Amino acid sequence: MFRPEIKVYDCTIRDGGLMNSSKFSLATVRAVYKACCEAGIDVVELGYKNSPKMFSPEQYGAWRFCEDVELFKVVDGIDNVKGTRIAVMQDAHKAFADDVAPKSDSPVDIIRVATYVKDVDKAINLANSASKKGYETTINIMAVSTAIERELDEALAQIAKETDISACYIVDSFGALYSEDIDYFVKKYSDILGDINKVGIHCHNQQQLGYANTIEAIIRGVNHLDGALYGFGRAAGNAPTELLIGFLKNPKYNIRPLLDVIGKEIISLHEEMNWGYSIPYMVCGFLNRHPDAAMKMMKVPKENPESRDYAGFYDKMAEEDF
Amino acid sequence: MFRPEIKVYDCTIRDGGLMNSSKFSLATVRAVYKACCEAGIDVVELGYKNSPKMFSPEQYGAWRFCEDVELFKVVDGIDNVKGTRIAVMQDAHKAFADDVAPKSDSPVDIIRVATYVKDVDKAINLANSASKKGYETTINIMAVSTAIERELDEALAQIAKETDISACYIVDSFGALYSEDIDYFVKKYSDILGDINKVGIHCHNQQQLGYANTIEAIIRGVNHLDGALYGFGRAAGNAPTELLIGFLKNPKYNIRPLLDVIGKEIISLHEEMNWGYSIPYMVCGFLNRHPDAAMKMMKVPKENPESRDYAGFYDKMAEEDF
Repeated sequence: MFRPEIKVYDCTIRDGGLMNSSKFSLATVRAVYKACCEAGIDVVELGYKNSPKMFSPEQYGAWRFCEDVELFKVVDGIDNVKGTRIAVMQDAHKAFADDVAPKSDSPVDIIRVATYVKDVDKAINLANSASKKGYETTINIMAVSTAIERELDEALAQIAKETDISACYIVDSFGALYSEDIDYFVKKYSDILGDINKVGIHCHNQQQLGYANTIEAIIRGVNHLDGALYGFGRAAGNAPTELLIGFLKNPKYNIRPLLDVIGKEIISLHEEMNWGYSIPYMVCGFLNRHPDAAMKMMKVPKENPESRDYAGFYDKMAEEDF
Repeated sequence: MFRPEIKVYDCTIRDGGLMNSSKFSLATVRAVYKACCEAGIDVVELGYKNSPKMFSPEQYGAWRFCEDVELFKVVDGIDNVKGTRIAVMQDAHKAFADDVAPKSDSPVDIIRVATYVKDVDKAINLANSASKKGYETTINIMAVSTAIERELDEALAQIAKETDISACYIVDSFGALYSEDIDYFVKKYSDILGDINKVGIHCHNQQQLGYANTIEAIIRGVNHLDGALYGFGRAAGNAPTELLIGFLKNPKYNIRPLLDVIGKEIISLHEEMNWGYSIPYMVCGFLNRHPDAAMKMMKVPKENPESRDYAGFYDKMAEEDF
């Protein structure tokens, strides 16, 4: 028996865009969108809607800004037979409410606002503004593993009181959480938001727990699930969408188009960008640290013995002031 | 608080040997053994003790046979300060009791017997013979996800009655089990063996659940845990030992020597052999199939478009008679 409330959000283009400055060809984005439509994915996230005042359009691709005119090119002519909806993400500290057009002028259905706990007022402002323009909204609380709990509780209470979001996400940006932590945060979110149906989960794979922790959240009643094709995302990446679809029982889902587009589009990107499990990411994950230092280490050329000095990297990360 | 009963078994050389016909240099095996000793790993498994009558010594390396004379070369001069013990594995259908010398003549401490349910009588015979010679023994029931449950129950009851093994393992050879399946098998094993302390867990990573399922088993009380460095093992590999040591709290464990030997020895092997998550393995995992067909597909050269025809591979696997 499947749980009809469950919704899968594919974040391939959005989270993967953190590995290539969102420089995807239109053909790749269309192929991913088409595969998600055919597979019955509930929501496909096509990038960030961040401000060109904060990101240079010379340095970043179209999917960092997600202008509606670009998004219309993505959906043009693709048969969205199962009603896949489109999301874009705004970073609370890198986006403006004015960049969002009224819903009637846009192919976007959902505005997801990513925020650190400290920026929750900005996030609420963006979400409420988008909501007034006709969009469904979510708030995604990043790096929840390093949040001060009193502040997190206050932010959740404020979100519950001041917004009409459809979901608030547990985002394990550092891939630091274990299954018992997932249980703990799901209960906290559900209690404070007052509704388990408003809890979402977005996991990273630094400790190879992205998919497992998403299943754990499902078992605990969470219905908003993020994934990415072949786990494409920052550092060790996300819970793989294809694994989620392999696990879920809703007959509307079809894994085949996802496997197909992974072979045709994603694998070659993986060969270039090499997200996924590696020792530097693992070290950051189990130390509950941002993967930035690990991403730098992963760029050291193979010929340089430092690229494999994992014990040295661990020493450095373990000793550094946080 | 850590659970002192927990024992970590590192299977790098044994399970990794399934990817290279056990052709490791003595230097590599010594480096892995030394790192495990320094890290406080409880047991290091140095290979298979299978019969040269069934495996050609021309085709397979020394660690498929684990002659005592070779094992003495491994340990020679290495300071085993934390009391790491040595295991070797016998396959119930590919090994003979006579190949095992009395314990007093061997550096081996533990004989682990791998078996399918149908070969349990052979396994019991090997285990009891080794036990009489002075070894600790375990029985590892492979491919438990495809066992007929009535037969599995009978095998477990027979093992409980007829042997004095220290542990009987749930072996998820196909990487097909989810956390709720782990709970189910742990309870079954514990009930029939009559002692949770006799239950062991060995997971594969076809669905990126190897480590997560091992944690799940820990939560359910399992104390015998298999891992391999960087997950080195057949197909998608095993639960990574370094992640297990990162998770466990026993102060005797030290992750640093493991990270060091991964950088110095294991990463270069990974570049050659490329175990770990991939779509063909994932397909076999979620269809509960042996990874053989996937391993064949992984050997198709990249230039051949068939190497990325994941949808076609899925169709073939899903349609085939089992």
